[in-house]
Amino acid sequence: MRRAVEAYRQANDTRILSDLAEFLAIPNLAADSVNIRRNAHHLLRLLERRGIRAQLLEAPGSPPAVFGELKTPGATRTVVFYAHYDGQPVDSAHWATPPWRPTLRTGALTDGGTVIPLPVQPGSVQGEWRIYARSASDDKSPIIAFLSALDALRAAGIAPSVNLKFFFEGEEEAGSDHLRDMLTRHRDRLGADLWIFGDGPVHQSRRQQVSFGVRGVMGVELTLFEASRALHSGHYGNWAPNPLVAMAHLIASMRDRDGRILIAGFSDDVAVPSPVEREAIAGAPVVDSALRAELLLAGTEDGNAPLMERIMLPALNVRGLSGGGVGRLAVNAVPTEARASIDFRLVPDQTPARVRALVEAHLRRQGFFVLDTDPTREERLAHAHILKVVWGEGYPASRTDMALPVSRAVIRAAELGAGGRVIVVPTMGGSLPLYHFDEVLRAPIITVPIVNHDNNQHAADENLRLQNLFDGMSVYAGIIAHLGRVWGDTP
Amino acid sequence: MRRAVEAYRQANDTRILSDLAEFLAIPNLAADSVNIRRNAHHLLRLLERRGIRAQLLEAPGSPPAVFGELKTPGATRTVVFYAHYDGQPVDSAHWATPPWRPTLRTGALTDGGTVIPLPVQPGSVQGEWRIYARSASDDKSPIIAFLSALDALRAAGIAPSVNLKFFFEGEEEAGSDHLRDMLTRHRDRLGADLWIFGDGPVHQSRRQQVSFGVRGVMGVELTLFEASRALHSGHYGNWAPNPLVAMAHLIASMRDRDGRILIAGFSDDVAVPSPVEREAIAGAPVVDSALRAELLLAGTEDGNAPLMERIMLPALNVRGLSGGGVGRLAVNAVPTEARASIDFRLVPDQTPARVRALVEAHLRRQGFFVLDTDPTREERLAHAHILKVVWGEGYPASRTDMALPVSRAVIRAAELGAGGRVIVVPTMGGSLPLYHFDEVLRAPIITVPIVNHDNNQHAADENLRLQNLFDGMSVYAGIIAHLGRVWGDTP
Repeated sequence: MRRAVEAYRQANDTRILSDLAEFLAIPNLAADSVNIRRNAHHLLRLLERRGIRAQLLEAPGSPPAVFGELKTPGATRTVVFYAHYDGQPVDSAHWATPPWRPTLRTGALTDGGTVIPLPVQPGSVQGEWRIYARSASDDKSPIIAFLSALDALRAAGIAPSVNLKFFFEGEEEAGSDHLRDMLTRHRDRLGADLWIFGDGPVHQSRRQQVSFGVRGVMGVELTLFEASRALHSGHYGNWAPNPLVAMAHLIASMRDRDGRILIAGFSDDVAVPSPVEREAIAGAPVVDSALRAELLLAGTEDGNAPLMERIMLPALNVRGLSGGGVGRLAVNAVPTEARASIDFRLVPDQTPARVRALVEAHLRRQGFFVLDTDPTREERLAHAHILKVVWGEGYPASRTDMALPVSRAVIRAAELGAGGRVIVVPTMGGSLPLYHFDEVLRAPIITVPIVNHDNNQHAADENLRLQNLFDGMSVYAGIIAHLGRVWGDTP
Repeated sequence: MRRAVEAYRQANDTRILSDLAEFLAIPNLAADSVNIRRNAHHLLRLLERRGIRAQLLEAPGSPPAVFGELKTPGATRTVVFYAHYDGQPVDSAHWATPPWRPTLRTGALTDGGTVIPLPVQPGSVQGEWRIYARSASDDKSPIIAFLSALDALRAAGIAPSVNLKFFFEGEEEAGSDHLRDMLTRHRDRLGADLWIFGDGPVHQSRRQQVSFGVRGVMGVELTLFEASRALHSGHYGNWAPNPLVAMAHLIASMRDRDGRILIAGFSDDVAVPSPVEREAIAGAPVVDSALRAELLLAGTEDGNAPLMERIMLPALNVRGLSGGGVGRLAVNAVPTEARASIDFRLVPDQTPARVRALVEAHLRRQGFFVLDTDPTREERLAHAHILKVVWGEGYPASRTDMALPVSRAVIRAAELGAGGRVIVVPTMGGSLPLYHFDEVLRAPIITVPIVNHDNNQHAADENLRLQNLFDGMSVYAGIIAHLGRVWGDTP
């Protein structure tokens, strides 16, 4: 199969590339309702051209999702392939070439890659070439890779091993505000045994990767109030309570220098890594020392514990601190208030509601009167330590059990496609609202990313290294062709 | 004597007021070299008109100081009266009437005082009237009060009890950059047994006050470095060191929530209050609860310990904290650095050099590599915790021993002038560079302020309540007439 896919790719590389370029040329901001629908209709045509029954799914106020379905005679499992077709906002002034004018280069711009025309001679496309455009990596190329993988298998007469569905979201980069509604409205169509996510980059080593989760996220803004006006630090320093010092003590009470969260009960809900997860972590390439060198860090938290171990745990990140003035803005005064902004990364089985309750209990134990508005005069006179606590929206982590038959089957099928071992990642450190899929559809989610890590995702000059597209075709072909079989084979 | 001064004041109140208004009409910014010299020459005339030998003292680059000398036959002690004749910068747009157009009002502007002309009928001036102008309080009126006290005593045939000298500084509000040079150059002329400072306000209760010291001050800017670029808090949170958390722990290690400084050795040099100081503190009016109510504070540091006790101790005030972003500026990233700005208030016998050494030793004990420039690439890679520490200029506290005969004599003479008990304050909480006088001239300094506390010092609509001018005349007359005698009398 791998040889057949490779042969197909060589014979069709210019066409695959021009298919991608044509798709990338359609501006794809979720907020641009005309163009976002042009993308959706383009996707409909890409599916229908392949004999896949396709339609737009709608929810009020949302860009459409594109849905497709391809039954496989005899298959007992159904897999949905997910990607999003919208892209991050662009600041064109920072792009070397316009974001929606796909531009081919002989290599990375930062390595001096020069612009070349799209080639016309089949078999002439070089893997180190890169195509520059918004969504070149995030997420249009996984869609092209998956459909091209299907084309390659068909050309070789290899049937899919599972029933396939397609769900292409149109507002992921705008926050997926309507995703829950969309999934709920169309739940009946979206039933499946597995979701495969194509979003995200592969490992920094360029090795293929399969990941089983994301961390949850939630944020909170803290404002600590003391005297109602700033006070001369000579006349009142050492008498008037200093809100910055109180905030420093509060933060120190919440987290130690090594990243350990000190809030009582916080780790009660933290799932211990399973043996399979521990094995995966131990087997993953260690990038830590290279990363430390790149970041000019002489050390990282918890005695240089590996990144992949650390992201299995929740994180308390102070993203901002503010109060009084520093440098030229410093004045010899006791400030009136201190502000801190914190984001939490959650892991299974933490819930935002429980984290919120634990944090607020901690704040109260630290002696604070907690409210969610500015304190009144009376409240200030009644309570020595007042903290305004305003939570942002948050959501829980999502992690698929790596010991499930489906998990082992996806790893095996991906390896058959890749022609070798893939890196297995129990969770990514970042966050995606996968919990909507968990909660509404109750199907496992496994992410099989294909794009290069150095793709300038979300920034100017987003790009795709073409070898990643071709390698991705192979991996997806492996999943389409083998998953059903190995899934059944897996004890 | 008190009756004679009172009678003189009643007969001459309109003239005293017009003398003050004439003086206030001369713009007095230290940086305005033409006008600041007009003030100095005006002062020369005020002194010479009274038969006081007067001259300008010069130092390169400085406004002149005005020096005067009046010998008293038979007197064995010499007292220098200090005030400054320059004023704070003005923002005229915020003044109700122009800062250098002295304006008389029937009361405080904030209480609806209305503008009235300067009265011409002797005996008609009301104590609750206020005159509005830059330096009405800070410091031109103490000069007029002192000279008028001398006039009143002379009119009653009462001779001074000490030799008098006058030293009027012209750049106090501009930072006294040339004061040290000025004192050093003219040291021979400035020999004395005591300096009386007229600067500053009396107690909030409007009771007369004598104070014996000021705290020293020094400031430091701390910058704590971690990764060389901001990192996604999902991918790297709980792995990359967070500089805001490290700064919070550092601040918490330096000071507890109750204002106690935790830096090893910091209190070794802190002089224990003497019995006389403790007695003065115990006898002073307690303003704390009123102040807490005004500031909407339910509590102050160290279990509501009295303000006057607290300022006998050094203070560590965090005047600013900054890093990352809060509120709308919050992003889910691990910031690259944290900044803190701290001012210290020092008490005897702390020195800035020793405090600096103790603080830096503490920072090193907390694991930081301390430098005073931005770290190089190599330094960042070599040290896990890096802190840039930049000190501002600072100076030590100054406190005159209240048990000295001169101290007891000043209190007694002031009480004879005031006709009752005065409030005795071991130290003010704020800072003045009195150490220059200590170090260059080695004479005790005692502050006998006269102006109202609600004078808008340094701000728009600076003003003087006229009763303070008249009460000040009495106090200064008491000192001029009685100090030499009670000083001799005091065992």
